[in-house]
Amino acid sequence: MHNIDPETHLTIGAFIYDDMDQCDFTGPFEALSRVPNSTFKSFAKDTGPVRDLYGLRFLPDLSLSQAPQLDVLLVPGGHGQEALMDDEEVIGFIRSQARHARYIFSVCTGALLCGAAGLLEGKRATTHWTAMGVLPLYGAIPVNDRVVVDGDLISTGGVTAGIDGSLVVVSMLRGVQSAQEIQLYMAYDPQTSFTAGSPGTAPPDVLHTVTEHAKAITARRMDAGRRYQASSMHVVRTAH
Amino acid sequence: MHNIDPETHLTIGAFIYDDMDQCDFTGPFEALSRVPNSTFKSFAKDTGPVRDLYGLRFLPDLSLSQAPQLDVLLVPGGHGQEALMDDEEVIGFIRSQARHARYIFSVCTGALLCGAAGLLEGKRATTHWTAMGVLPLYGAIPVNDRVVVDGDLISTGGVTAGIDGSLVVVSMLRGVQSAQEIQLYMAYDPQTSFTAGSPGTAPPDVLHTVTEHAKAITARRMDAGRRYQASSMHVVRTAH
Repeated sequence: MHNIDPETHLTIGAFIYDDMDQCDFTGPFEALSRVPNSTFKSFAKDTGPVRDLYGLRFLPDLSLSQAPQLDVLLVPGGHGQEALMDDEEVIGFIRSQARHARYIFSVCTGALLCGAAGLLEGKRATTHWTAMGVLPLYGAIPVNDRVVVDGDLISTGGVTAGIDGSLVVVSMLRGVQSAQEIQLYMAYDPQTSFTAGSPGTAPPDVLHTVTEHAKAITARRMDAGRRYQASSMHVVRTAH
Repeated sequence: MHNIDPETHLTIGAFIYDDMDQCDFTGPFEALSRVPNSTFKSFAKDTGPVRDLYGLRFLPDLSLSQAPQLDVLLVPGGHGQEALMDDEEVIGFIRSQARHARYIFSVCTGALLCGAAGLLEGKRATTHWTAMGVLPLYGAIPVNDRVVVDGDLISTGGVTAGIDGSLVVVSMLRGVQSAQEIQLYMAYDPQTSFTAGSPGTAPPDVLHTVTEHAKAITARRMDAGRRYQASSMHVVRTAH
């Protein structure tokens, strides 16, 4: 699958922002920062601290305006994504990077930011299970898999699916053996003590509680999707 | 297993440090920051930025000297752990917190920091697979499981095993349903594309490469363990 010269240095980066879900970013960082012959940087609207939804604070490496063209752009999700759906600096950054990046890699509701940038039109994609119904508003074909690869777009399901996806991305960049070496270092041989990681396997009361908890943000995400549907971005993309 | 009043507020914290492996910290943060009726803070030697082994920068919430008594102390691992094995401020902090904490939760080679604090004497414990041979030097009984619970000590295997362990800790603090709700939110239904997450399942050449890569740090970890063996800490603990 990969055909990149091992001598070609790869520039990998993530867009990070307030109220993101930190694990959407840090899970993939673990694998992607270890890609042979690569550099990983984080980018934010400015270089001040970025605060995750539950208070963990990061210092980004550079601002969006300082970012070079990336080979891979990681777009994490989280509630804070919703505040950026009409942010032209952010959406323009993603759209512009996507023109020449090898891969755009969305985790969780990071897919919706990619959607607002017009990157999901006609693409098979996935997102957090609570937001799957939003994807068609961005012209995407929802696929209920943990990792979905469609051309230069890799999207994953919620939060920890980003770890699974990041190892797939490593294999696409540097081959399966590199991915396996990183997997072994990370001891990624997961064993869950409880069976509740997906809507299909969680006990009904657990599913009910978490769905209720996501109700308000899901409604806001649907609204943003409808705004996109009415926008020229959608019209321009679908006219091609 | 858990018997803590849901009305009792829980104070959870992590010790973070330069050249830690960020995922040892951020994986468990994802679950532990969502424990009902709790607060999660990060603590470092000082409040300046903490830089992970691959360059990700965090801002800690407080310094060690500002830390209250915690209900749960998370101790992540990573190469930087080795520079702290004789650091009396750090080792003293862990030892002192352990006296009254409900649980000490080590991830990966964070177990070795707990070992230096005398917390592993006579305990069943685990760590990153490359460092399992170091555990007996701290009086521990190595157990080749991903998550090991022995009384108030929870230890996990390498890096991503911290995610598995953190959900077990949530269940011990707030019951299985809380753990399941967090698991469902995190979509923790892992599916690995490659089979290489443990020494027993990785292809031989992958195992060889990663083992070679860890050789120098493993030798240094053995040395620190031997220093501990010769120290009064070990003598005092084993005399009891």
